[in-house]
Amino acid sequence: MDSLSLIGMASIITAGLTIAIGSIGPALGEGKAVSQALSSIAQQPDESATITRTLFVGLAMIESTAIYCFVVAMILIFANPFWNELSTVAGG
Amino acid sequence: MDSLSLIGMASIITAGLTIAIGSIGPALGEGKAVSQALSSIAQQPDESATITRTLFVGLAMIESTAIYCFVVAMILIFANPFWNELSTVAGG
Amino acid sequence: MDSLSLIGMASIITAGLTIAIGSIGPALGEGKAVSQALSSIAQQPDESATITRTLFVGLAMIESTAIYCFVVAMILIFANPFWNELSTVAGG
Amino acid sequence: MDSLSLIGMASIITAGLTIAIGSIGPALGEGKAVSQALSSIAQQPDESATITRTLFVGLAMIESTAIYCFVVAMILIFANPFWNELSTVAGG
Amino acid sequence: MDSLSLIGMASIITAGLTIAIGSIGPALGEGKAVSQALSSIAQQPDESATITRTLFVGLAMIESTAIYCFVVAMILIFANPFWNELSTVAGG
Amino acid sequence: MDSLSLIGMASIITAGLTIAIGSIGPALGEGKAVSQALSSIAQQPDESATITRTLFVGLAMIESTAIYCFVVAMILIFANPFWNELSTVAGG
Amino acid sequence: MDSLSLIGMASIITAGLTIAIGSIGPALGEGKAVSQALSSIAQQPDESATITRTLFVGLAMIESTAIYCFVVAMILIFANPFWNELSTVAGG
Amino acid sequence: MDSLSLIGMASIITAGLTIAIGSIGPALGEGKAVSQALSSIAQQPDESATITRTLFVGLAMIESTAIYCFVVAMILIFANPFWNELSTVAGG
Amino acid sequence: MDSLSLIGMASIITAGLTIAIGSIGPALGEGKAVSQALSSIAQQPDESATITRTLFVGLAMIESTAIYCFVVAMILIFANPFWNELSTVAGG
Amino acid sequence: MDSLSLIGMASIITAGLTIAIGSIGPALGEGKAVSQALSSIAQQPDESATITRTLFVGLAMIESTAIYCFVVAMILIFANPFWNELSTVAGG
Amino acid sequence: MDSLSLIGMASIITAGLTIAIGSIGPALGEGKAVSQALSSIAQQPDESATITRTLFVGLAMIESTAIYCFVVAMILIFANPFWNELSTVAGG
Amino acid sequence: MDSLSLIGMASIITAGLTIAIGSIGPALGEGKAVSQALSSIAQQPDESATITRTLFVGLAMIESTAIYCFVVAMILIFANPFWNELSTVAGG
Amino acid sequence: MDSLSLIGMASIITAGLTIAIGSIGPALGEGKAVSQALSSIAQQPDESATITRTLFVGLAMIESTAIYCFVVAMILIFANPFWNELSTVAGG
Amino acid sequence: MDSLSLIGMASIITAGLTIAIGSIGPALGEGKAVSQALSSIAQQPDESATITRTLFVGLAMIESTAIYCFVVAMILIFANPFWNELSTVAGG
Repeated sequence: MDSLSLIGMASIITAGLTIAIGSIGPALGEGKAVSQALSSIAQQPDESATITRTLFVGLAMIESTAIYCFVVAMILIFANPFWNELSTVAGG
Repeated sequence: MDSLSLIGMASIITAGLTIAIGSIGPALGEGKAVSQALSSIAQQPDESATITRTLFVGLAMIESTAIYCFVVAMILIFANPFWNELSTVAGG
Repeated sequence: MDSLSLIGMASIITAGLTIAIGSIGPALGEGKAVSQALSSIAQQPDESATITRTLFVGLAMIESTAIYCFVVAMILIFANPFWNELSTVAGG
Repeated sequence: MDSLSLIGMASIITAGLTIAIGSIGPALGEGKAVSQALSSIAQQPDESATITRTLFVGLAMIESTAIYCFVVAMILIFANPFWNELSTVAGG
Repeated sequence: MDSLSLIGMASIITAGLTIAIGSIGPALGEGKAVSQALSSIAQQPDESATITRTLFVGLAMIESTAIYCFVVAMILIFANPFWNELSTVAGG
Repeated sequence: MDSLSLIGMASIITAGLTIAIGSIGPALGEGKAVSQALSSIAQQPDESATITRTLFVGLAMIESTAIYCFVVAMILIFANPFWNELSTVAGG
Repeated sequence: MDSLSLIGMASIITAGLTIAIGSIGPALGEGKAVSQALSSIAQQPDESATITRTLFVGLAMIESTAIYCFVVAMILIFANPFWNELSTVAGG
Repeated sequence: MDSLSLIGMASIITAGLTIAIGSIGPALGEGKAVSQALSSIAQQPDESATITRTLFVGLAMIESTAIYCFVVAMILIFANPFWNELSTVAGG
Repeated sequence: MDSLSLIGMASIITAGLTIAIGSIGPALGEGKAVSQALSSIAQQPDESATITRTLFVGLAMIESTAIYCFVVAMILIFANPFWNELSTVAGG
Repeated sequence: MDSLSLIGMASIITAGLTIAIGSIGPALGEGKAVSQALSSIAQQPDESATITRTLFVGLAMIESTAIYCFVVAMILIFANPFWNELSTVAGG
Repeated sequence: MDSLSLIGMASIITAGLTIAIGSIGPALGEGKAVSQALSSIAQQPDESATITRTLFVGLAMIESTAIYCFVVAMILIFANPFWNELSTVAGG
Repeated sequence: MDSLSLIGMASIITAGLTIAIGSIGPALGEGKAVSQALSSIAQQPDESATITRTLFVGLAMIESTAIYCFVVAMILIFANPFWNELSTVAGG
Repeated sequence: MDSLSLIGMASIITAGLTIAIGSIGPALGEGKAVSQALSSIAQQPDESATITRTLFVGLAMIESTAIYCFVVAMILIFANPFWNELSTVAGG
Repeated sequence: MDSLSLIGMASIITAGLTIAIGSIGPALGEGKAVSQALSSIAQQPDESATITRTLFVGLAMIESTAIYCFVVAMILIFANPFWNELSTVAGG
């Protein structure tokens, strides 16, 4: 069991868990925000423009934490500096 | 137990858990959003067009986190860079 | 304990857990959505057509995350690329 | 401890856990939906036909995730491709 | 520790856990449904026939997930294909 | 550590945990149902006959999942097919 | 570490955990039922006879799941068939 | 590490955990029942006799599950049949 | 690592955990009961005597489960029959 | 790794965890009781004497479970009978 | 790995966890008490003196459980009797 | 398994988990804040400017904790001082 | 793996976990207190001085538990008596 | 596996987990506080200055616990006294 494949395994497992765990919070948070937005529109239809605009800004903020996770997962799979370095020196 | 099969096992297990864990948050979040949408339509039928439109935008945002998980799972199964690299050098 | 059977074990266990864990979220989310739909119909019978249509779209979105899990489980059992590749080279 | 029996053990354990864990979500979701249906009928008896119809469609959707789990469990016990393949080559 | 007894142990443990875990969801779901049914009857005694009929259909759906678990447990104890196959070849 | 005693240990532990875990859900579900029944009787004393009858049917359904667990536990202790088979061949 | 003492240890640990875990559900369920009974009596003193009778039937049902656990624990300590069988053949 | 001391260790640990875990449910359940009793007395002082009597019956039922745990713990410490049997044959 | 010190370690750890875990339930239950008592006194000052008396009876019942745990912990530390027996025969 | 230091380690770890875990329940329970006391005083200022007295009795009862834990922790650190006994015989 | 450093490690880890876990309960309990105090002052400004005094007594009681944990942590770090004793005999 | 690859594995796993776990809290917190903001706008449209401004300040504060996690993850992947130091001395 | 580095590792891990776990309770408790303070000010603006003063005293009490954790973490990193003692005798 | 890299691994893992776990509490607490602030502004626009000021003080207090975690994480990565000391003596 050489070092290179261990780094690979760690990267695979971590990438998957990162985006999996990282999708729980944003999905629930966005669900709550969207849900309240619909309720507010039903309650105050005249303000639907302001509500929708605020909702989109909020969703963007919440989605950003999911994006962080996705970026880290992608880096670990496709641009992993540890793998690259060890790979060029042909493994430990 | 060679390196190649370890990478394979890690990919299989991670791919499954990624989409499994990653489906909990979006499913609950969408359930909440859809549920509130139905309630809002019942409360304010005249705004059903605005409500439905906002709901679809919100569902797309929430679904996106599930898509991230699905993409990572598919990459790990069908386009795994670690497997490909180790596979071409015939395993450790 | 050869590599082939390890890949097989990992596939079996992962396939089962994927669909098992992946069914919790959608089932709860759909239960919430259906439950609210029934409440809304009782509250606003005249809008039952709109409510039912929105419910079905929402259920389809939620069910999609369960489908993702089912697809991954099926791929792992019947079209596992790692098993196929190792199987053709007769195991490690 | 040969490969064949390991595959068998993994199949047994996974089949049981799959249907066990997979029954929690649908059972709770259906309980919620049925519960609300009864409440809606009591509130709006005139709409009991629509409510019942919508309830059955919803229950079918929710039950489908339990069916997925049951199908995977049955496949693992009675039509396990990994067991069949290893069994024909007489185990590792 | 031969293969046969390992398969047996796995079957015993899995059968017990399957029905044990699998009874939590249905029991809670049925409790919720029955509880709401009683509340609805108290609220709308004239609809007790419709409520009771809908309740029984719902209980049957929820109970079905418990039945799945019971069936799998019984199969694992009394009609275990893996045990039968290994048992006839006199263990690995 | 022979096979026979391992089967015995697994049976003992599984039997206990099965009935222990399997009693949580039904007990809570029945508690909820009984609790609501008492509330409904207080609210609508004239319907106490219907409420009590529906309660007993519901309790029977919920208790059935506890019975499943008890049956499996008893089978594992007093009519364990794996123990019997291994016991007759005098252990592995 | 002979087989006999392993069976003994497993019996001791399982008996304790069975009754310990098995007392959580019934205790909470009975607490809920008793609590609601008191509330119902305060609300409808004239129905206290019916309420008390229904409460006792319900408590008996809930207590039955605790009794199952207690019976299994007692069987494991004082009438353990596995211990008896192994004890007569003087351990494996 | 002889068998006798292993049985002793298992008995000590199990006895403690049994009463510890077994006190959580009854304590919470009794807390709920007492709490509701006080609320009911404040609401309907004239029925305090009936309420108190029903409360004591209920507390007795709930306390019984704690007593089961205490009995099992005492049996394991002071009247452990496995310890006695092994102790007389001077350990395995 | 002789038997005597193992028994000692098990006793120490179990005694601590028993009283620690065993204090959670009673503390929460008593908190709930006291809290409701204060609320009831504020609501019905004239019944403060009855409320206080019922509260004290209830607290005694709840505290009893904590006492059970404390007794078991004290027995394990100061009157441990297993330690005494092994200690007199000078360890295994 | 001699017996004496093992007993010491077990005592240290147990003492810390005992008071740590044992402070959760009382702190939450007291928080609930104090919180309700303040609410009751605000609601019924004329009864503040009775409320305060009942609160102090209740707090003393709840605090008692924390005291039990603290006593056990102190005994384990400063008056540990197992350590003393083993220490005088100069370790196992 | 000598005894002295093991005692040291256990002390370090336990001291940290003790104060960490021990701060959760008091912090939440105090948060609840303070929160209710503010609400009560807003509701009944005239009683702010009584409310504040009762709050401080309550906070002192709750804080005391945190103090217990802090004292134990400090004893383990700076006045550890086990470390002192072993340290003077120059380790095991 | 040399030191360098162990440091690499630890960095990969930690970076992923840091951002994954660290995204749960902020996402839920922001979801709550955005949700309430929408509700407040619907309730008091005239104050939407103040509400939006306060919301953005709050979101920035909450997001900052996610940023901390992202910064730590990035440092661990791209500017890891331990990796750099060990890497320059060519591993342990 | 010498004693000195083990003490170091334990100190590092414990220091981090202490402040991490120890920040959960105070943060939630302070969030609750601040949240209620804002609500009280909105409800009773005239008492904002009293409310703010009481809030600050409360926050100080809650923060104190976080400070305890921070102090212990700092002691473990910068003034660790075990490290100092072992370090001066040049490790075990 | 030398001491230096073990210290490094522990520092990396602890730094990440510290800030990850430490961000959950503050994020949720701040979300609650901000959320209530928005609600209070909508309810009492005239007091928005006082509310905002109190909110910022509160946010600063809550954020401080996140800062503690961040500081500890940074110390562990960039100013780790254990790493520095061991590093200068060239590892154990």
